[in-house]
Amino acid sequence: MPRTASALALFASLALTQLAGPAAAQDWTKSKWGPNDEIGAANYITPELVMKAAQLVKVGKTYHLGIETNSKTPAFPPRSFKITIVQPGQAGIPGLGPNKTTYNDDIIDGWVGIGSQLDGLGHLGVEYVYYNGNKGADFADATGLKKLGIEKVPPLVARGVLLDMAAHLGTDVVKEGTAFNTKEIEDVAKKQGVEIRQGDIVLFHTGWVSLIGKDDKRYGAAEPGLGVEGAKYLAGKGVVAVGADTWGLEVLPFETKTVFEVHQILLAMNGIYILENMNTAALAADKGYEFLFVLGAPRITGAVQAIINPIAIR
Amino acid sequence: MPRTASALALFASLALTQLAGPAAAQDWTKSKWGPNDEIGAANYITPELVMKAAQLVKVGKTYHLGIETNSKTPAFPPRSFKITIVQPGQAGIPGLGPNKTTYNDDIIDGWVGIGSQLDGLGHLGVEYVYYNGNKGADFADATGLKKLGIEKVPPLVARGVLLDMAAHLGTDVVKEGTAFNTKEIEDVAKKQGVEIRQGDIVLFHTGWVSLIGKDDKRYGAAEPGLGVEGAKYLAGKGVVAVGADTWGLEVLPFETKTVFEVHQILLAMNGIYILENMNTAALAADKGYEFLFVLGAPRITGAVQAIINPIAIR
Amino acid sequence: MPRTASALALFASLALTQLAGPAAAQDWTKSKWGPNDEIGAANYITPELVMKAAQLVKVGKTYHLGIETNSKTPAFPPRSFKITIVQPGQAGIPGLGPNKTTYNDDIIDGWVGIGSQLDGLGHLGVEYVYYNGNKGADFADATGLKKLGIEKVPPLVARGVLLDMAAHLGTDVVKEGTAFNTKEIEDVAKKQGVEIRQGDIVLFHTGWVSLIGKDDKRYGAAEPGLGVEGAKYLAGKGVVAVGADTWGLEVLPFETKTVFEVHQILLAMNGIYILENMNTAALAADKGYEFLFVLGAPRITGAVQAIINPIAIR
Amino acid sequence: MPRTASALALFASLALTQLAGPAAAQDWTKSKWGPNDEIGAANYITPELVMKAAQLVKVGKTYHLGIETNSKTPAFPPRSFKITIVQPGQAGIPGLGPNKTTYNDDIIDGWVGIGSQLDGLGHLGVEYVYYNGNKGADFADATGLKKLGIEKVPPLVARGVLLDMAAHLGTDVVKEGTAFNTKEIEDVAKKQGVEIRQGDIVLFHTGWVSLIGKDDKRYGAAEPGLGVEGAKYLAGKGVVAVGADTWGLEVLPFETKTVFEVHQILLAMNGIYILENMNTAALAADKGYEFLFVLGAPRITGAVQAIINPIAIR
Repeated sequence: MPRTASALALFASLALTQLAGPAAAQDWTKSKWGPNDEIGAANYITPELVMKAAQLVKVGKTYHLGIETNSKTPAFPPRSFKITIVQPGQAGIPGLGPNKTTYNDDIIDGWVGIGSQLDGLGHLGVEYVYYNGNKGADFADATGLKKLGIEKVPPLVARGVLLDMAAHLGTDVVKEGTAFNTKEIEDVAKKQGVEIRQGDIVLFHTGWVSLIGKDDKRYGAAEPGLGVEGAKYLAGKGVVAVGADTWGLEVLPFETKTVFEVHQILLAMNGIYILENMNTAALAADKGYEFLFVLGAPRITGAVQAIINPIAIR
Repeated sequence: MPRTASALALFASLALTQLAGPAAAQDWTKSKWGPNDEIGAANYITPELVMKAAQLVKVGKTYHLGIETNSKTPAFPPRSFKITIVQPGQAGIPGLGPNKTTYNDDIIDGWVGIGSQLDGLGHLGVEYVYYNGNKGADFADATGLKKLGIEKVPPLVARGVLLDMAAHLGTDVVKEGTAFNTKEIEDVAKKQGVEIRQGDIVLFHTGWVSLIGKDDKRYGAAEPGLGVEGAKYLAGKGVVAVGADTWGLEVLPFETKTVFEVHQILLAMNGIYILENMNTAALAADKGYEFLFVLGAPRITGAVQAIINPIAIR
Repeated sequence: MPRTASALALFASLALTQLAGPAAAQDWTKSKWGPNDEIGAANYITPELVMKAAQLVKVGKTYHLGIETNSKTPAFPPRSFKITIVQPGQAGIPGLGPNKTTYNDDIIDGWVGIGSQLDGLGHLGVEYVYYNGNKGADFADATGLKKLGIEKVPPLVARGVLLDMAAHLGTDVVKEGTAFNTKEIEDVAKKQGVEIRQGDIVLFHTGWVSLIGKDDKRYGAAEPGLGVEGAKYLAGKGVVAVGADTWGLEVLPFETKTVFEVHQILLAMNGIYILENMNTAALAADKGYEFLFVLGAPRITGAVQAIINPIAIR
Repeated sequence: MPRTASALALFASLALTQLAGPAAAQDWTKSKWGPNDEIGAANYITPELVMKAAQLVKVGKTYHLGIETNSKTPAFPPRSFKITIVQPGQAGIPGLGPNKTTYNDDIIDGWVGIGSQLDGLGHLGVEYVYYNGNKGADFADATGLKKLGIEKVPPLVARGVLLDMAAHLGTDVVKEGTAFNTKEIEDVAKKQGVEIRQGDIVLFHTGWVSLIGKDDKRYGAAEPGLGVEGAKYLAGKGVVAVGADTWGLEVLPFETKTVFEVHQILLAMNGIYILENMNTAALAADKGYEFLFVLGAPRITGAVQAIINPIAIR
């Protein structure tokens, strides 16, 4: 037991380091999974955990965790999105062959960072240094990432844990600027009777995504979300990914002068994936706090992010 | 028992109708699920079937069923695909904020029909009439399908059945033009000890997709695949979707003068989804003939098809 | 002089044919310039006419005839337009080389038919038959027109004639639905003291384009413009191109039940180019009724139309 | 005559300054045309010069100075270009209206920096400082340049001067790495009997662009072109623009360790436009050393560069 105030302070900071996990202590540019690792916390997924997660399926109900993406989806400039439907080669003809086959084809043109998102480990870093010490100048080629691309992400199959922050705070839509840190996370987990374990994928329900189409301006200006301390806490738990029904997961306005520090802590420093604009309302309404989470992100070579629609099954 | 030759012929044709299912008998423009239905055979998915499928997870192994999509993926003209990586607003700066946040963003420009595909029910029809009698002129708006869009497809969670045609035919790559009809399907199912049931998703393994990067010309010129009779057979079984590790599922050269008739039978006439370029090799190597199949296609509003990465879990 | 009523009728119809030009009489699918011709009325441009046009430069004043094109330019669905500025490879660096070169690059994504336009001879036809009998199915390949592409258009250098319809009608903006036919054209030409001759490029000034940014809805819903009879009249004069400061040149609402018939008469039947959204206001203010017109449309292979900025010099 | 060594040195440096023009002496970030100027050397164009240029039209011959741009045009990664032809809304119909109007429409997707180019004054700078001291961070918005955009460029109408370097060097294609500096420029001008004057647009003919389609690799790896000293010389002459039938105008390999220094001297330091991939062969064959040069670059708001087709008339 420490005798002096300063010793006590030192002890306290060491204790905090224990709780906060690697993000505060080691050289984050060196992944615990070795210098060639590109998949980060997906390494926590094991066959045992997959089997256990499948056993969470008890009522056979499925949920889209993806929202719709289209040209009206709020997006940050200069991002935009557009789809065009065409019928190549069919102008004026009844169709191909005696069976008159006709078809519609589609062309997409848009920034990937719109709608429900998987942020890959090459998305955000610290002064151009990304997960596992990879430097942007080395891997972020204009025609596609040479490392950390979305095609590298293994199937994300895990126990999903929903933390219903809205219910906890007695509201439909949690206020912008509300930060979720250790205390909030632990309170909700306890109330809901769930633990957060290594290999989990944790999703926050805040109600925020319901603002789309009603108040796009408010939706995009700020959000409730994960705070810096909460990010370190979850990293210490060894989660695979963290998501929310918000555009950016982390609380805005930011808690301090730092900008997107939670993204840095999760993606760059801990190789933990981020899931944005998750459609958590239906799960929350069903009190589906534990479920089988399955995501196969479209394997576009060299992509930084992906437009996704993970499935929850319980 | 029929006495005469003509009676025998009549009996035989009636029997065939029974086997072949609705495709040969009713007015296909009227869906059995009613005039407003947009999801077709996905209606076969029930909570019971989902729970049973989850119980197929016995070893905890997961598989990407998606191949990579990029500018080199073989595609039919005029289709093309491109991704561009940018760093908006970071020219010449160390990063945003005191924590120097930097990030990569991506822009996609390309036809959706490249790589691993989900063909939606609005993709292909007969003389501009699509699933459930929907007319192209009514729903295929240039800015997005007004009906049958990919965003309407529910989570495709089902018992997956793999039919390893390559192993059955004693080859690594089944020859182009080899048709899979009732006899072939039943032989393989029997040999593998699996049944095909209502609500299943059936995938053929042929080895064809392994030609990508080795012989793109051969890969795209033809393929082994489902024949017209086999399509009707599977439709009669009430499957939700049929796929293969080929670019187009159905056998090419076509069996007769008709063009993409299997697509018409599955998509338009029976509301059965098609999965193309499925990465079945690993499942086949593990003899994973039954598995939990999970697909959340990215919910791009009004899309005709989707670039997908379904996950198989066993 | 004809003696009988029927002879009189015959005479009248022949007379009308003379006035109306080829559009009413011959088989329009056979160009007067032969079966292989792809440039239509540009054939009227001769060195003599070019020299005469250059001699019209008397005060040395130049004019942009192009308006700006951007994402806010009114356009007909599904058309859209977007430009993105990027700084490839410069994230975090002071520049390339000891002299620290840095640069901006741009990417365009959009429909060509937005802003100031040159309609090529492959743009519009009659039941999929285009200029000189070319069938869409033969030349309109999805990756670019195989004939009649914009890259085939020779330099359009000619005597430009401005007809100030707005001044003639005593208004700033001519009302939508106002048709310019032979009488109107001849009255204005006479008042302005200009002739319309073979090889000319004729532009109408109506004031309509000034509605952009003020009343986009009105701007796009209709317009004053060339009528069917007026189109035949100008075709009979042997003009190279006709344009206006409107989005579509021809009067809307249409004069009859026909749809874009003026486009058919000019482009398909006579190989006469159409110029849309011409910025004629400054020329009109200066009473620049005759000028040297110069257009080099960007030579994008296989393009149907081009975004242009012709220059008037007087 | 200077008496001392230091005086001699001072004299020599002043003399060099005279020869080299402003680029070596003043603060280049302050344009001679004032702090708000965005058009640089286009300010040299006057009505008198326009009239004189028009008088150069003596035989009535016109020339495309633009080459074709398409998906096969050599381009530097990640640049790419694509056009798609569509027939919106016409699947299965004979056409619109009783007159059966049908039409082709086109969509462009591509980097602007491909094919014949106008480099605007916002294209290249020194450590993110561009023409007239404009800082990239201030004006280079991702949705379009806020200053120095192509839409600001006035009609470029001037006396064009062709310097046939290939003929001068007795070759069809001038070798890569051959630098054109003051001596070379003056020798050719003298041999051809032309002067270079303020307000001119100077084009070099080297034969290099004829390599496209024959040896794309060689074409893109290097080029003959303007050297640093030559650039300063031309700047001192007060030219409006300099171009060549090469992809980058300046000599490659570079003369020293500096990278694209000629671009910096012309664009950033002197507001002189650069024209790339000019199709000079026909003019050279006709010995068209003086001509009327006319360029209306498509006025895409905020563009950095433009795909162009200037017209030469003589």
